[in-house]
Amino acid sequence: MIKVDLSGTYEFFGEHSPDYAAAATAHRTLEEGNGPGAEFTGWLSLPEKMAGAELKSVLSASEKIRSHSEVLVVVGIGGSYLGARAATELLGPVCKDRREVLFVGNNLSADYLNGIEERLGERDFSVNVISKSGTTLEPALSFRVFKSLLEKKYGPQGAKSRIFATTDPVSGALRTMANEEEYFTLTVPGDVGGRYSVLSAVGLLPMSVAGIDVSKVTEVAIEQMRRLDLRSPENPAWQYAAARRLLYDRGKIIEIMAYYEPDFRYMAEWWKQLFGESEGKNGIGLFPASVEFTADLHSMGQFIQDGPRNLLETVVSFEKSNTSYKVPFDLLNADGFNYLAGRDFDRVNKTVAEAVKSAHISGGVPNIGISAGERNETGFAELICFFEVACGVSGYMSGVNPFDQPGVEAYKKNMFKLLSETAEHNA
Amino acid sequence: MIKVDLSGTYEFFGEHSPDYAAAATAHRTLEEGNGPGAEFTGWLSLPEKMAGAELKSVLSASEKIRSHSEVLVVVGIGGSYLGARAATELLGPVCKDRREVLFVGNNLSADYLNGIEERLGERDFSVNVISKSGTTLEPALSFRVFKSLLEKKYGPQGAKSRIFATTDPVSGALRTMANEEEYFTLTVPGDVGGRYSVLSAVGLLPMSVAGIDVSKVTEVAIEQMRRLDLRSPENPAWQYAAARRLLYDRGKIIEIMAYYEPDFRYMAEWWKQLFGESEGKNGIGLFPASVEFTADLHSMGQFIQDGPRNLLETVVSFEKSNTSYKVPFDLLNADGFNYLAGRDFDRVNKTVAEAVKSAHISGGVPNIGISAGERNETGFAELICFFEVACGVSGYMSGVNPFDQPGVEAYKKNMFKLLSETAEHNA
Repeated sequence: MIKVDLSGTYEFFGEHSPDYAAAATAHRTLEEGNGPGAEFTGWLSLPEKMAGAELKSVLSASEKIRSHSEVLVVVGIGGSYLGARAATELLGPVCKDRREVLFVGNNLSADYLNGIEERLGERDFSVNVISKSGTTLEPALSFRVFKSLLEKKYGPQGAKSRIFATTDPVSGALRTMANEEEYFTLTVPGDVGGRYSVLSAVGLLPMSVAGIDVSKVTEVAIEQMRRLDLRSPENPAWQYAAARRLLYDRGKIIEIMAYYEPDFRYMAEWWKQLFGESEGKNGIGLFPASVEFTADLHSMGQFIQDGPRNLLETVVSFEKSNTSYKVPFDLLNADGFNYLAGRDFDRVNKTVAEAVKSAHISGGVPNIGISAGERNETGFAELICFFEVACGVSGYMSGVNPFDQPGVEAYKKNMFKLLSETAEHNA
Repeated sequence: MIKVDLSGTYEFFGEHSPDYAAAATAHRTLEEGNGPGAEFTGWLSLPEKMAGAELKSVLSASEKIRSHSEVLVVVGIGGSYLGARAATELLGPVCKDRREVLFVGNNLSADYLNGIEERLGERDFSVNVISKSGTTLEPALSFRVFKSLLEKKYGPQGAKSRIFATTDPVSGALRTMANEEEYFTLTVPGDVGGRYSVLSAVGLLPMSVAGIDVSKVTEVAIEQMRRLDLRSPENPAWQYAAARRLLYDRGKIIEIMAYYEPDFRYMAEWWKQLFGESEGKNGIGLFPASVEFTADLHSMGQFIQDGPRNLLETVVSFEKSNTSYKVPFDLLNADGFNYLAGRDFDRVNKTVAEAVKSAHISGGVPNIGISAGERNETGFAELICFFEVACGVSGYMSGVNPFDQPGVEAYKKNMFKLLSETAEHNA
């Protein structure tokens, strides 16, 4: 189970305490489904709903892909991208019998597309296109590219059997296309927004192809969602939500997520979308940023220690690394580190984390510790559920609808106008 | 030449104008070397100083490495890491006859080390260890690892001929070791801090091995440093420094660097260190963050459009992508994008950037545009010099010493104490 350590925050609370009564109210609103955006709270019971036929469908698609492909090209952006990438980067490296998963449709760079094509080389591949509507610009254009590559390589019929569409069960452009071309299809649930969708087929299919045990992920998530229903200040989701809200009210307006494992990078990106998109609206919200330690101690460390005191640091850690590596003994010992010879890097890493924590607290940066258990399917599923519930609670505590994203439309209007204008101009 | 576009900032200036008089004073202080930290302003003339024997030395080391190695493992952290990584990721993919460059010593993760060892496989490699002192924890420990791997593979004598040390010319642990073991050595200049060192051997050796033309980089940098000496509001470095300072004074306390090419990621990381470490002190400084568009429009876009109005956005762009890719025509046209068929992705990318710019400005986010010419050695060198000069000017404008990093010491004291305590405890 996730543990939240608030000991590094107390001295920054002043006369105040985290408002657990408000957390209780927010949690009730969330569970009873009577707050704004309640129609998008299906993620609370998503793991349970996945457990039957849906999961079988994911496993069957995965089996098919793995049987004839060395690489899976996943086409998606935002919530149709970050969760799967987070999982495959965090857990993929130690999976047995893994397949490479490449992500496209998350930008409009020609150089990126050419790079992916080069990396793909002559290997056999399949495509998983993930989009609720099918009309989001980046994945739609990238899907055109990889569909056309499949057709060149395998012919139109062969291509169809290598395209797996995760989309709306009934309507939308991708659904129409999938029906027409008879793709294998999986479902983007209607009551779950993109950023909460990682435990649906959206995330689970790429994960499974990468070699991750998604049955285990689902099983743990079901259990974890039950535990997170706890209505008490013992609930780690309440602790995290209430502490960061109090710190925000006291001027800590930037939340830095820090981690000590480079493979955690996309988990932090997923978290940034989850919290940034859920809470950053109506002129309020904590700005979510991330730092990769220890690398960024040597870049952002100065700012964190000595810059404006408007930062809050949230450190996510696992019990231990998946593999071990011992510090070698060196005869010359010019660096003087022979006293660390034979020690595992992971222990050194954790000692440094401890030192950094107390330095940053002394420097005026409150520190929230989140311990995530093991770096495997269990730790991953627990962490995802924890952040989702905490985000729902936190969003309602701050008075916003944590399940919409009205601001994302602003640039799209301009964009489609400009794109079609330039098209007419060319015609 | 770099162009700074401030048209997206004017409406946020209120009654005020960028303080070019203050920029002039700061620039004079920088050039005359009479401000705090003046002993570390050697980077102003670094390209000129590199042009002779030093550059020859870099090229000779590079030639040697390329002759017997498929991979170069670079050991470094902070300023001994980010510049080289930024350059190799930005320019490497299109270099002819490139070698793979892997970066270690930038974390303490056992999983990371094992991952690099796996990626290295059976290929021939050399090591470039970069550290002024040789006693920075992460690179020192990682150097032990890769030195020991070299010794296993090539024997002690063979290992020595594959180790290239970039370090202090006279003193320090790594210098001692290099003398003792007779490594090929290159110089970390004494009057240049880590974050300003990318155009010294620190950055140039890894870049050259990756296939980047470092003679060209140096040549362009010499010319660019001369141009940036311009004492007028026409100087793009003044424009950037003065505009962001004014915006900071008006409450824009977070600066987001946005870019539309995924390969630019480490350029943004380099920039974060440069500005974060130079300006984030004495309780002041803009918090530097970065977003990768268009991906992050679908994660941080909501916050940028609708969250607290304390953001400033700086967008870096190149004239065009290095390669091209056309949007394919699709017979079904379910997504409705056939009107874009045949258009280059890069043009679509730039149209979207235009749409995003105006949406964010309308939403209350001032926008600074930085146009960087071509995505090649010239564009890279111009951009590096531009940001360095702008950072020096900006730092002096804000009244700090932009060349020290006193806050970085805080955690190190704790760290070495804890590390040696646990060592004694074990003994």
